[in-house]
Amino acid sequence: MRMSEGVEWAAHACAVLAALPDGRALPGARIAEYLGVPPAYLAKHLQALSRADIVVTGRGPAGGYRLARAPAAITLNDIASAIEGREPAFRCQEVRQRGPVGASAQACKRPCGIARSFWAAEKAWRAALREVTLVDLLADAARGIDAERARALGAWFESAAR
Amino acid sequence: MRMSEGVEWAAHACAVLAALPDGRALPGARIAEYLGVPPAYLAKHLQALSRADIVVTGRGPAGGYRLARAPAAITLNDIASAIEGREPAFRCQEVRQRGPVGASAQACKRPCGIARSFWAAEKAWRAALREVTLVDLLADAARGIDAERARALGAWFESAAR
Repeated sequence: MRMSEGVEWAAHACAVLAALPDGRALPGARIAEYLGVPPAYLAKHLQALSRADIVVTGRGPAGGYRLARAPAAITLNDIASAIEGREPAFRCQEVRQRGPVGASAQACKRPCGIARSFWAAEKAWRAALREVTLVDLLADAARGIDAERARALGAWFESAAR
Repeated sequence: MRMSEGVEWAAHACAVLAALPDGRALPGARIAEYLGVPPAYLAKHLQALSRADIVVTGRGPAGGYRLARAPAAITLNDIASAIEGREPAFRCQEVRQRGPVGASAQACKRPCGIARSFWAAEKAWRAALREVTLVDLLADAARGIDAERARALGAWFESAAR
């Protein structure tokens, strides 16, 4: 099982936007530059984030992306769901109803133990991702930044943000 | 993100083997018949279960699959890992080192917060699957079986098991 790479790009894009000063926005091309990824590739993930109300984009020369709500109100589960969808990774095919001695549909109103167990595990996965907000990620990233890189980041933000 | 269908087939195959009387085995073709799935398709998943020491197969006319260890010692995590592998669903590409103001490799010895959070969520997913053994699945399945189907299942097992 592999998660789409887009989740990683989207999470980093949101973390960058969370670091923007209030009232500023970043054009999609500058977010792509920051992450070192082709702008067209990132654009589709930014659109998915926009559809999920995680980012908003302004129009015109002052346009650019910013977060749609406070960083504390955006979790990794929101971002993963925006990119990968909310469908469960385990898709039950009602195997128990198949074969020469399969169960009747009537006896299968309750999902089988295998499906319920996989769905419960996914619930635990989502619950863990729901615990992590962009504030947590920013705080964690900040701990690894020395004074020199902080200056470089500040200068880049100053030149890139609208 | 979608889990391989093979995980579902493998889980059901293991549950069938867990229901076998002691000392009996089921040929792969009969497991496939029971599940209503092409034998060739199931064979590759049975091989994966065999490589993971979850099932063993006997040779010759009395050959057939049986569990490699007690049903209480086989979990859904074992089965999912056998089919999907143990690699994490989230594969970190060190995005933070990219772009014009990327971090140095030296500053990135510790995995970034995004990767750690996704890996922690996968750990929670695996922990939940590790809680579910074949004994749990059998007990759950047994609760949904009425007397008529119990007889049909018993007759099928009697004819199919070696």
